[in-house]
Amino acid sequence: MPHSLLLRDVRPMAGARADILIRDGRIEAIGTGLSAAGVDAVDGAGAIAIPGLVEAHTHLDKTLLGMPWYRNEVGPRLIDKIDNERAAKKTLGIDPHRQSMRQAVLSVSKGSTHIRSHVDVDTESGVGSIEGVMATRDALRGVIDIELVAFPQSGMLIRPGTVELMDRALALGAEVVGGIDPAGMDRDPKGHVDTVFELAERHGKPVDIHVHELGELGGFSMELIIERTRALGMQGKVTVSHAFCLGMDDKAYVARLVEQLAEAGVHIMTTGSASRPVPVVKQLRDAGVVVCAGTDGMRDTWGPYGNADMLERAMLVGLRNNLRRDDEVEIALDVCTHGGAKVMALEGYGLEVGCHGDLVLVGGETLTDAVVTRAPRHLVVKGGRVVARDGVALVEAP
Amino acid sequence: MPHSLLLRDVRPMAGARADILIRDGRIEAIGTGLSAAGVDAVDGAGAIAIPGLVEAHTHLDKTLLGMPWYRNEVGPRLIDKIDNERAAKKTLGIDPHRQSMRQAVLSVSKGSTHIRSHVDVDTESGVGSIEGVMATRDALRGVIDIELVAFPQSGMLIRPGTVELMDRALALGAEVVGGIDPAGMDRDPKGHVDTVFELAERHGKPVDIHVHELGELGGFSMELIIERTRALGMQGKVTVSHAFCLGMDDKAYVARLVEQLAEAGVHIMTTGSASRPVPVVKQLRDAGVVVCAGTDGMRDTWGPYGNADMLERAMLVGLRNNLRRDDEVEIALDVCTHGGAKVMALEGYGLEVGCHGDLVLVGGETLTDAVVTRAPRHLVVKGGRVVARDGVALVEAP
Repeated sequence: MPHSLLLRDVRPMAGARADILIRDGRIEAIGTGLSAAGVDAVDGAGAIAIPGLVEAHTHLDKTLLGMPWYRNEVGPRLIDKIDNERAAKKTLGIDPHRQSMRQAVLSVSKGSTHIRSHVDVDTESGVGSIEGVMATRDALRGVIDIELVAFPQSGMLIRPGTVELMDRALALGAEVVGGIDPAGMDRDPKGHVDTVFELAERHGKPVDIHVHELGELGGFSMELIIERTRALGMQGKVTVSHAFCLGMDDKAYVARLVEQLAEAGVHIMTTGSASRPVPVVKQLRDAGVVVCAGTDGMRDTWGPYGNADMLERAMLVGLRNNLRRDDEVEIALDVCTHGGAKVMALEGYGLEVGCHGDLVLVGGETLTDAVVTRAPRHLVVKGGRVVARDGVALVEAP
Repeated sequence: MPHSLLLRDVRPMAGARADILIRDGRIEAIGTGLSAAGVDAVDGAGAIAIPGLVEAHTHLDKTLLGMPWYRNEVGPRLIDKIDNERAAKKTLGIDPHRQSMRQAVLSVSKGSTHIRSHVDVDTESGVGSIEGVMATRDALRGVIDIELVAFPQSGMLIRPGTVELMDRALALGAEVVGGIDPAGMDRDPKGHVDTVFELAERHGKPVDIHVHELGELGGFSMELIIERTRALGMQGKVTVSHAFCLGMDDKAYVARLVEQLAEAGVHIMTTGSASRPVPVVKQLRDAGVVVCAGTDGMRDTWGPYGNADMLERAMLVGLRNNLRRDDEVEIALDVCTHGGAKVMALEGYGLEVGCHGDLVLVGGETLTDAVVTRAPRHLVVKGGRVVARDGVALVEAP
């Protein structure tokens, strides 16, 4: 159902005032004094226009949004959080479809037009979470694009039966093969990474692996991932999420790793975590590595933070990377827009003629102003259709 | 001018619903079914009541709030930023009174009832900034309490004439003696710290020194400060702001420093900086060190970030310190309320009978919810007087 829309008096990327004409879902023209008979027109009143924000890493299936307050008393270890969550899914009744609808609709209201969501696959809930989020993906078609990563949160080789479930999730339609801490979780880095890439080969799908492992251990996992990316010719189709090891002290080793990532076309996802070592965004980009960002889990059993606002995420990435100059803060915004689009290989993404009519009108004087104030989202447009206005999505969540 | 106010149906610290009666500026009673003839009553509708937020470290004189957008193209070194700012004060016309009014009124709207502001003293602007912020302090009396730290931003011993200006600023009424990077800025750690403490002794005023110096260099500066605090019997009257060195790798040395800070009653201020090493809040508090927090500079020539929201600061401190459990996030809120009150030695601070009627009604289900969502400020009350409502201050800034 293609939509047409004329946005009058907006400032594309905070530049000169112009009109943007979207016809049948695509940007047909950007210029001054545009008109189009029979096309709805909106007065942008000089608002900044940016392409749709890209939420490139979250966990739609596990938010507690809209549920009674969860008092977090979870232990400090990673395994405490994973075990607690697997149990809480049943005791709290975290319904993957309902909860993913709530978070996805919140994302719409904040100006995201695309989401890559890791979705749990494990031997307790099987592919139930995948099915729940796929139902959300279908329900919100035309409002926000959702891509699923089949994600073995509780480990793969250490929990027999999980590989088969991953296979099933991918056959059902999950678009990306996930993985997690090859050494730290499965205790078998070679086995874990081999399994992930075998699944990717069999299904012809890209890879996005969580690597929380620190220092040289994380570096080794990255090396294994890079080697397989090269061997299978999967350049541009593999992402490492978090990659905390790239924040390690041994800067010479990090530099060598970054060089290999660039050569192998392996992308990096960062949340700009304030409490962990993090990849240095400017170093990665300068080396030619694509960097995207995401909210990660929000208001879940892991922690209470997060609001699905990718403009706020740009601010947090900026703060974490000490990006102070305007041109630097604009890099953080680029990570949360074009960076995510490159990682998700989105066709026709951008604020150019011919691109999909996916964009956001935001307040603020400049792009940096919009990021640091997390300026109001006046209008969110998806394929030429207005999907949110003044911070409120025009679709409802259960 | 004492004010009286009856707040009906609020939840003090997110606990059971109660009324709070403020009479003649002080909390007279907290209980259910309170009434008071002739006293204005407000229906809190179950909102959470917390004591006024305490902004314990900012720079009111240098924000660019309300001025044309400043495109930041400043160099990467500390000295680049300091020199750039000293020049920009003239070229941009950063009026200390006007700008401090703007930021202080923003603080009021966000629920802060007390501010400690470092205010530049240097040989180019003399005590002009001090006078400007003092005018703001006077103009906003009864709306928000402002305490001034005479702050030698550009160095003290390396810029002859500055010590005399510091002396004059303190004689004029600045309440606290400031300092900055004894080694890194003045290149004479003993000389700098001696001068700061001589000024403190002469004027009978407390001390708050910026220490950005990293690792062992910062540790040495801290030791010099601790030694003088003990020698002069100034326990409880000295604060080190930032103290990035407490985030250093040598945890055994940090533990010894923390022990000495606790013994000497030296307080620590943190912004929860995402890009620098930071003091560990829980470690400090467990050792008995008082920790407060602040916004630091906001929207100034140093960088575009910041919004004077101390509830957001609690979130940032929580994120930086990986505080995930509810009891942990509540620590971050305590740092931004009682922590600041202890550092500023505020008499009668708190949400108890007998305390000043300085409080905020905020949204949210729980304290953690209020912090992580930076819940709306429904009402800000200072000495029983309503000074902001629904996020809007009832006083105006120029």
